[in-house]
Amino acid sequence: MTEMQSHTLSILVENHSGVLTRVAALFARRGYNIDSLAVGRTEDPDVSRITIVAYGDDAVIEQVIKQLYKLIEVIKVVDLSKEEHVDRELALIKVGTTSETRADILQIVDIFRAKIVDVGSNTMMIEITGDGEKISAIEKLLRPFGIKELVRTGKVGLSRGPKDIVKEK
Amino acid sequence: MTEMQSHTLSILVENHSGVLTRVAALFARRGYNIDSLAVGRTEDPDVSRITIVAYGDDAVIEQVIKQLYKLIEVIKVVDLSKEEHVDRELALIKVGTTSETRADILQIVDIFRAKIVDVGSNTMMIEITGDGEKISAIEKLLRPFGIKELVRTGKVGLSRGPKDIVKEK
Repeated sequence: MTEMQSHTLSILVENHSGVLTRVAALFARRGYNIDSLAVGRTEDPDVSRITIVAYGDDAVIEQVIKQLYKLIEVIKVVDLSKEEHVDRELALIKVGTTSETRADILQIVDIFRAKIVDVGSNTMMIEITGDGEKISAIEKLLRPFGIKELVRTGKVGLSRGPKDIVKEK
Repeated sequence: MTEMQSHTLSILVENHSGVLTRVAALFARRGYNIDSLAVGRTEDPDVSRITIVAYGDDAVIEQVIKQLYKLIEVIKVVDLSKEEHVDRELALIKVGTTSETRADILQIVDIFRAKIVDVGSNTMMIEITGDGEKISAIEKLLRPFGIKELVRTGKVGLSRGPKDIVKEK
């Protein structure tokens, strides 16, 4: 029996043009749906780290990892879901406000230790970081007030403790 | 004279398989270098938001935006750099620690209002959110202690005030 589950892959790549396209194409070709993807710089200016969250069964993800290693720019792939790790995501949420609802919204922001980053005459922008569940929870609580816009970075993560996922020199 | 500058594009797309590949390919084909890319869910489960930071001159970015609109899955493209907006990024940084350096690192964490999210016997993992400059600043201060691993989400942003970048119903 195959089990569909969430995998968080941390992929170290050389900063070549087109590498992101090749990585994304590899997932698309296998019909493997990407839930979120974040790519940003690392401590080494020649290296970027792509973090991908995708749902699928273990056998398919093993295949995808093998295929990733065939790409010349791929330095290392780690399935973070298979080890102890910390993961975080950031979201910005723009919510509608009125004089009646403002206090309720501020209370929610307080409970979640979120931050107000912009205030308009009838909107408020909230910054929240945490795991995916925390972000979904605050989103659910704010929905009745009217979410105007929402953007999420997608998950990023690092393994706990001293273990590194870095390019060997 | 053409001016190379940073553009932050916020792209609303339908959640179809392969859309990310097509968007990334469009940038790669034009030799337009992507500095960071974040894709995550939005308030509408059928729609994702891709935030791309790329460097290039204004003429090229105009062309890229036109090309993006030709992709059937693209709902809306906004160049956030052209309007008042809030942008944020999240990073996780794993730094080496010793009994001598721990206090200094904690002081830096405190100044930047960062958070300790994991502590090992000789490492510490720090979560920081802010604009790109803030993250680069803390990274620079922590570098002498030995950065073991670093992951950044890439920038996400929303326009200030009531203006929405959402799918019209």
